[in-house]
Amino acid sequence: MSTSTETSPAPRTEARSEFDRDTAVTLREPGVYDAELSAGWTIIHAVNGGYLLALLGRALGEHLPHPDPFTISAHYLTPSVPGPAVIRTETVRTGRTLSTGTASLYQYAEDGTEVERIRVLASYGDLGALPDDVRTSATPPALAPIEQCFSAADNPAPAIPGSSAIADRLDLRLDPACVGWALGAPSGKGEMRAWFGLADGREPDALSLLLAVDALPPTSFELGLKGWTPTVELTTHVRCRPAPGPLRVAITTRNLAGGFLEEDAEVWDSAGRLVAQSRQLARAPRD
Amino acid sequence: MSTSTETSPAPRTEARSEFDRDTAVTLREPGVYDAELSAGWTIIHAVNGGYLLALLGRALGEHLPHPDPFTISAHYLTPSVPGPAVIRTETVRTGRTLSTGTASLYQYAEDGTEVERIRVLASYGDLGALPDDVRTSATPPALAPIEQCFSAADNPAPAIPGSSAIADRLDLRLDPACVGWALGAPSGKGEMRAWFGLADGREPDALSLLLAVDALPPTSFELGLKGWTPTVELTTHVRCRPAPGPLRVAITTRNLAGGFLEEDAEVWDSAGRLVAQSRQLARAPRD
Repeated sequence: MSTSTETSPAPRTEARSEFDRDTAVTLREPGVYDAELSAGWTIIHAVNGGYLLALLGRALGEHLPHPDPFTISAHYLTPSVPGPAVIRTETVRTGRTLSTGTASLYQYAEDGTEVERIRVLASYGDLGALPDDVRTSATPPALAPIEQCFSAADNPAPAIPGSSAIADRLDLRLDPACVGWALGAPSGKGEMRAWFGLADGREPDALSLLLAVDALPPTSFELGLKGWTPTVELTTHVRCRPAPGPLRVAITTRNLAGGFLEEDAEVWDSAGRLVAQSRQLARAPRD
Repeated sequence: MSTSTETSPAPRTEARSEFDRDTAVTLREPGVYDAELSAGWTIIHAVNGGYLLALLGRALGEHLPHPDPFTISAHYLTPSVPGPAVIRTETVRTGRTLSTGTASLYQYAEDGTEVERIRVLASYGDLGALPDDVRTSATPPALAPIEQCFSAADNPAPAIPGSSAIADRLDLRLDPACVGWALGAPSGKGEMRAWFGLADGREPDALSLLLAVDALPPTSFELGLKGWTPTVELTTHVRCRPAPGPLRVAITTRNLAGGFLEEDAEVWDSAGRLVAQSRQLARAPRD
């Protein structure tokens, strides 16, 4: 039971969340941050790309004078692995409402040399300073009520063999129309829709949106492809600070061609605002 | 009349085109290219962002071991002006099928110091090496036959005051459903669709697609907004080498909020292939 009094600071729930703990960065010297890639955000052996983006996004938000990623592009160069990493940031330009910077995540080869994993280019602003005007023709995704959607716990025989540690970190509820792949009957449509939350109840913010856009099963599963879809590049626009509560995420692939596909994601908050839009280019599975 | 014989090289039409002439870069030293931003691609006083992207894309294609931009993200930092510029490129990673690099375009302040205009991060590959498989649910945009569409010459009183030199470089035919803005009756929909070609008949390629995604009037005109929509960031995926002939370009804005809007563009070639997809984040007009 809490013994806090009126004068005690409020409990810092966010600082205790798995997401905030595992995306923490430590300033080593100006512009250089140490980080530890957690094995808790892996699927099979791969560290989730959205988790990595959030980690880079946090470092850049600490380095730049503006706090929030308005548009952030990440190019994934080599596969990240759990363990130590260093993030090197550079300010490209500082403006009144936007600042632009780069960030690179490196890990260490056996001989100790740094190997670059991800390069990011982003423009940051202050979501809290934006006017409230909204003029949108976008409509929230068709998504069944959360109690009718499927969580990882509903599937006693996971379709993905091997570890999927990230499933324990997320409260992901897939729309019934998008779970055919897990039952051996993919819909054939390049669509994936889910309610998204963090398992420990940590509420969404601009950084966790960077995770949300790349946390669902790949749309290629519903296209009947079982292999891996490694991300080449992922760009996310954060359009609004999300309200507390579950997010709705819809991902669409329209064009699988020449061995590549795009994944378009949009994220809606509980207040019915379109809070993030993303697009990635990924390699199509080989099978 | 040509006096060429069988042994002469074919006339290099592309090298003579306005687009190729005005996006030419000259190697100054390894990774550094001199360029001249042409006044021929301006609208009012602004140099078109797609033209600038194509110029940066050409420099990066010369620097990297792979020729074609697969995914290229540009952050626009300060307004470019016609005149000399220098492009500095850096190789981030070279792989077998993809290589990643950055490029920065600088111009000169009055005191001679370099001012960065645009920063680009891109991954390049070889479109000619991709397999022909296509599995798409995307459909070409609804666009009236080219002879029913409107060119700049059809409008004796341009809605945009001031110079629009770029209009002379392009063969742009706007769909009748998207010209309301020019007649004082915007549709209210964030849609702009047009047939796109280069006025001198130069056929499309991967580089000219980078121009095509940002060459139409802004969707905000059809939303009834008249001001400028400066691009913050523009990411383009080139998915296929375009076939000769006119391109179809469709641009959509769904979400204008907090003073920003997105523009999603898709480009289709004469063979019915989706050849490019782009998204930009832009500042909404103030009026």
